[in-house]
Amino acid sequence: MAVYTEVGDDELNAFIDTYDIGRVTSCKGIAEGVENTNYLLKTDRNDFILTLYEKRVDRKDLPFFINLMEHLAASNIACPTPVKDRKGRILRELAGRPCALISFLQGMWVRRPRPDHCAELGKAMANLHLASLKFDGARVNSLSLKDWRPLFEQSKLQADSVQAGLADEIEQELNRLETQWPQGLPQGIIHADLFPNNVFFIGDKLSGIIDYYFACTDALVYDIAICLNAWCFEHDGSFNITKARAMLNAYQAVRPLSKAEFDALPLMARGASLRFLLTRLYDWLNTPAGAMVKPHDPLEYLRYLRFHKHIESASEYGLDL
Amino acid sequence: MAVYTEVGDDELNAFIDTYDIGRVTSCKGIAEGVENTNYLLKTDRNDFILTLYEKRVDRKDLPFFINLMEHLAASNIACPTPVKDRKGRILRELAGRPCALISFLQGMWVRRPRPDHCAELGKAMANLHLASLKFDGARVNSLSLKDWRPLFEQSKLQADSVQAGLADEIEQELNRLETQWPQGLPQGIIHADLFPNNVFFIGDKLSGIIDYYFACTDALVYDIAICLNAWCFEHDGSFNITKARAMLNAYQAVRPLSKAEFDALPLMARGASLRFLLTRLYDWLNTPAGAMVKPHDPLEYLRYLRFHKHIESASEYGLDL
Repeated sequence: MAVYTEVGDDELNAFIDTYDIGRVTSCKGIAEGVENTNYLLKTDRNDFILTLYEKRVDRKDLPFFINLMEHLAASNIACPTPVKDRKGRILRELAGRPCALISFLQGMWVRRPRPDHCAELGKAMANLHLASLKFDGARVNSLSLKDWRPLFEQSKLQADSVQAGLADEIEQELNRLETQWPQGLPQGIIHADLFPNNVFFIGDKLSGIIDYYFACTDALVYDIAICLNAWCFEHDGSFNITKARAMLNAYQAVRPLSKAEFDALPLMARGASLRFLLTRLYDWLNTPAGAMVKPHDPLEYLRYLRFHKHIESASEYGLDL
Repeated sequence: MAVYTEVGDDELNAFIDTYDIGRVTSCKGIAEGVENTNYLLKTDRNDFILTLYEKRVDRKDLPFFINLMEHLAASNIACPTPVKDRKGRILRELAGRPCALISFLQGMWVRRPRPDHCAELGKAMANLHLASLKFDGARVNSLSLKDWRPLFEQSKLQADSVQAGLADEIEQELNRLETQWPQGLPQGIIHADLFPNNVFFIGDKLSGIIDYYFACTDALVYDIAICLNAWCFEHDGSFNITKARAMLNAYQAVRPLSKAEFDALPLMARGASLRFLLTRLYDWLNTPAGAMVKPHDPLEYLRYLRFHKHIESASEYGLDL
């Protein structure tokens, strides 16, 4: 939650003049987005989000993200739409940063998702996956299986300072996933960060999905595994099978899972747990005290990982094949 | 620039239901306001600012601030208007904080004010002062002459670590101001924090003044002195008399200064410099490294103070009596 880059008023007005969107009436930095700077920009015609891409986003990935958003919007997936300037350009530069102007998406994210929210999510995720099959861009997942061990090596020596035995437990899980990780599952573009704060609702209805800056090419069922963790556990760490069933079956109603995907889900869920455990562990150990962003608790994902270890079949998540 | 207090969606919806303002469609924390948490709240009818008052604002002062905003809005001063709930209440509670819902004010603050902006400011400040004369609330200035020495005592021993000789220079100035500070000047409600980021413009026209949380009863000309510092110095530290002249004469066109105010202005400007030098010095010495808010440079105000020491008459600011 931060504004990393300030934009001067003259600079902003000159920038907006290159678009056919009316005259700026307000521009406020919003306290969302850890990676980028976001302004809620109002003109006399409409509201927009102006995103300035900060250094954690690789510039060479930006055309992929922008093209994906355009493709999804054109496929009637509820998501922000990049806005073209008078010359037809989307990716621009402002205040020394790459930037893009994006339509404002109405809605709010739910702090405590209910089963009906999870069903809405399942349906929207399946539609997103289907639409992505017709998208010709591709991006390697930079946080997939092969990346976990190098990431772990950076935290290994300090891991037990967070919890005794953690390094050994991660090591064993890595060994297992590296030998058993399923291959040949249906691939496509996954969102890869479908946490509740990236999914907007108006009332009970999903109004859109934002923040495509982790999107990449990977097994579609891996996106579902990420959502099992992000949406279906309660604050006390218990797994809510009603929510999982609602999400999974709403997904299947749009895009039925193959037998291979069904069988892979428990291991995918372990992988998804380990991926967030590792990035959170790294951030936990490397975020200076008093920093602007408070790191998330890595142990939350250790608890999820342990839960999934005991799952023998995806039917235990409430999934009917 | 921070969101200190998170508001849950259910809690927010229940809160907004107690107002007749439509249905919430979006609510984003905005990265403005060092003291409070501010959300830009959108409903299907209008935009609002939802302010949650954090601990640096004294609860007992809140009715004064709210009543002042109501009075100014009713007096056709361009400022945010507090919104009443269905029971006619303005000051409410949300997420354990006192809070108020306030109309959204269009406009942007100017990073580099020009003389025409300064003239707009002068006129609006004079109108604000005149309107405040009909307001029956009062609030003691908690950062006036009598408060400067106790504030200085908290930084005195470390002051020379910021600049050699600083403690002595402040001490001498304090001695002088304590003996020469003018009494009996016309009083009223002053804004007391009229920095460019609190004054919105649409194009060249002032659209409103925000952030009344330092407003207090004091000499009206002291507000002008604060603005001389905040608006009329260039980034290189030079004083721009064209801007000062524009501001002062636009002010006078609405509310002419008395001879006593004219004579007092140079000393008021020294006092205004010392006040911000002292608060900035305190923050500079007491803000932990890596804190969310970067402290302002106190020495900027030392330079202003030294400038005003050489002023013998307000006519040197471009002011015609």
